[in-house]
Amino acid sequence: MNEAVSRAGLIIREKEPANREFPFPSLSPATPTNAFFVRTHFPIPAIRAKDWTLTVDGEVERELRLTYDELLGLPATTSPVLLECAGNGRAQLVPKAKGLLWDTGAVGTAEWTGVPLSAVLDRAGVKEGGVDVILQGADKGEVDDPRSPGVIHFERSLPLAKAMRPEVLLAYKMNGKDLTPDHGFPVRAIVGGWYGMASVKWLTHVTVTATPFEEFWQSLEYAYWKRERERPTLARVTEVQVKAQIARPGLSEAVPAGKPYRVFGAAWGGGSDVAAVEFSTDAGKKWAEARLLGEAVPFAWRLWELPWDVPEATGRYQVMARATDTEGRTQPEKHDADRRTYMINFVFTVEVEVV
Amino acid sequence: MNEAVSRAGLIIREKEPANREFPFPSLSPATPTNAFFVRTHFPIPAIRAKDWTLTVDGEVERELRLTYDELLGLPATTSPVLLECAGNGRAQLVPKAKGLLWDTGAVGTAEWTGVPLSAVLDRAGVKEGGVDVILQGADKGEVDDPRSPGVIHFERSLPLAKAMRPEVLLAYKMNGKDLTPDHGFPVRAIVGGWYGMASVKWLTHVTVTATPFEEFWQSLEYAYWKRERERPTLARVTEVQVKAQIARPGLSEAVPAGKPYRVFGAAWGGGSDVAAVEFSTDAGKKWAEARLLGEAVPFAWRLWELPWDVPEATGRYQVMARATDTEGRTQPEKHDADRRTYMINFVFTVEVEVV
Repeated sequence: MNEAVSRAGLIIREKEPANREFPFPSLSPATPTNAFFVRTHFPIPAIRAKDWTLTVDGEVERELRLTYDELLGLPATTSPVLLECAGNGRAQLVPKAKGLLWDTGAVGTAEWTGVPLSAVLDRAGVKEGGVDVILQGADKGEVDDPRSPGVIHFERSLPLAKAMRPEVLLAYKMNGKDLTPDHGFPVRAIVGGWYGMASVKWLTHVTVTATPFEEFWQSLEYAYWKRERERPTLARVTEVQVKAQIARPGLSEAVPAGKPYRVFGAAWGGGSDVAAVEFSTDAGKKWAEARLLGEAVPFAWRLWELPWDVPEATGRYQVMARATDTEGRTQPEKHDADRRTYMINFVFTVEVEVV
Repeated sequence: MNEAVSRAGLIIREKEPANREFPFPSLSPATPTNAFFVRTHFPIPAIRAKDWTLTVDGEVERELRLTYDELLGLPATTSPVLLECAGNGRAQLVPKAKGLLWDTGAVGTAEWTGVPLSAVLDRAGVKEGGVDVILQGADKGEVDDPRSPGVIHFERSLPLAKAMRPEVLLAYKMNGKDLTPDHGFPVRAIVGGWYGMASVKWLTHVTVTATPFEEFWQSLEYAYWKRERERPTLARVTEVQVKAQIARPGLSEAVPAGKPYRVFGAAWGGGSDVAAVEFSTDAGKKWAEARLLGEAVPFAWRLWELPWDVPEATGRYQVMARATDTEGRTQPEKHDADRRTYMINFVFTVEVEVV
């Protein structure tokens, strides 16, 4: 199942701040660091490891200030974790959405090494009233929101129960090497199972609050309409939705008629594993089951493949893949407008040319 | 110099109307049809060849109505012609521009077969007062401009002198086959030397006017600030500006330290040939001359290559290429704001990682 390692060739979605997309047709089991998509909201802060500290405060028994060396001295874990931008696939929305128009490459799975956030929160001692854990990055700037005037930092929160889970790390290595500046050097959060915005880069402050945190980055940006109450409210985007993406054939790929072709791609859920991936070459009328490769690894993607007996009839084919997770959730056919331009996991169509 | 033929894997910039980008790192001498960028403004019109006619009217002696078979009966020429979207490179602008954020792949060179527009204009007999030649496509829709209410067609004009030049074709084949629907089937204009918006697709009307044509697509869209008079005026975008682009190494590509590496890319001018391409690995302090491959072909791009002795020192390098045309014009260092978000040919930086 080993594909050639990507040569990168990232696609610029925005030059500054840096927003760069992975070319998904070059999918490999583990995304190399230089091919991993980059999502930034503000200029990349330049932080030296020796100057970095992590402050842990708020509803804690003991405020902490950890240095980089102190963090690296704590027991660490290493595991592959998928990060997907909450807006991945936005270019697939019709009519055109506002915001960065990611195609299918704002997703990747890398191996992250770090200290469980729970270990640091345990050292600080979360008080009984602790509810939410704010993760604040050193990156900052102005945003287009009158309720958020002046310079603000990028920050997101996790409910305490999620913050204490083992898939939430204070990560300092990516694919076995120190983080690069565009991926959060020296330390970032990794929040397995949640969209990428939760994995705050250039992390410098962890604050436990007694009430839910409701600022810009989770009440306006990265928020969707939730209809649990009488009136819909903007709720924070959290768990990654189940999705399969096709790497090959790629859009407009010329596929030779009458020959076998190996279709392959990746699929993922949020907290759940992928149970099945199906593939269609007739715009979703008939589906064939793909073979899932390797073993399920929690919070990572899973590659899949399928032999396609390409017909003799040349012309354009609409191919599709859809995933179902172990809780029985399948990708929807259409985007739910309540999700605004986030959590985009409806079944995409890839046009290929049989020649 | 033959690179592997692209497998396509076009990048979606917008799903509908279809706007798709060529992944420039997969550059080859001639762009395959399925890898050629697609720029559309409205839904793709479905036109059957047997229903298609071309109307030639306005300031002509004899109005014409040509059928597809009649057009194909006229003497045709075949040659490679580069098309570049006037907004190619827009993702490189800082701050972020409005409009489709093309990276570097809204450009391609294909072989086009068609009848010189001049032959058809000669048959119609352009009257002495003819000034401008409007090319109108069958594609239509509404635009966001109060001065252009209702449904309008895509249309652009050429000054009569340009319209009569041999590099302006009524093209019906691309790379030896009938045009595909997304590239203008059954007939499109090909205007060598001008940005792609002039090469009107799904062409159905050619109208010679006695006064310059000044509608939406050349006075607001695809227009730039010209400062020849007292007050700047919005002038139509026309000739392609000289430019070199690097295919390999691609953005974030991992380049092995201490080994030779073959840098390659393409360069082009508008009406002029490329005289030289230079390459820099230190953000433009020192430049080395690249080798131009093959022969200059008017209105096509020219591939270039360069051996790079990659240093032993690992880290990020800012590589750049710049072209100079045979009239001595070199790419600028910065984007001229008067060009708005068109004609983007300042020297781009590609970050690569020597590892």
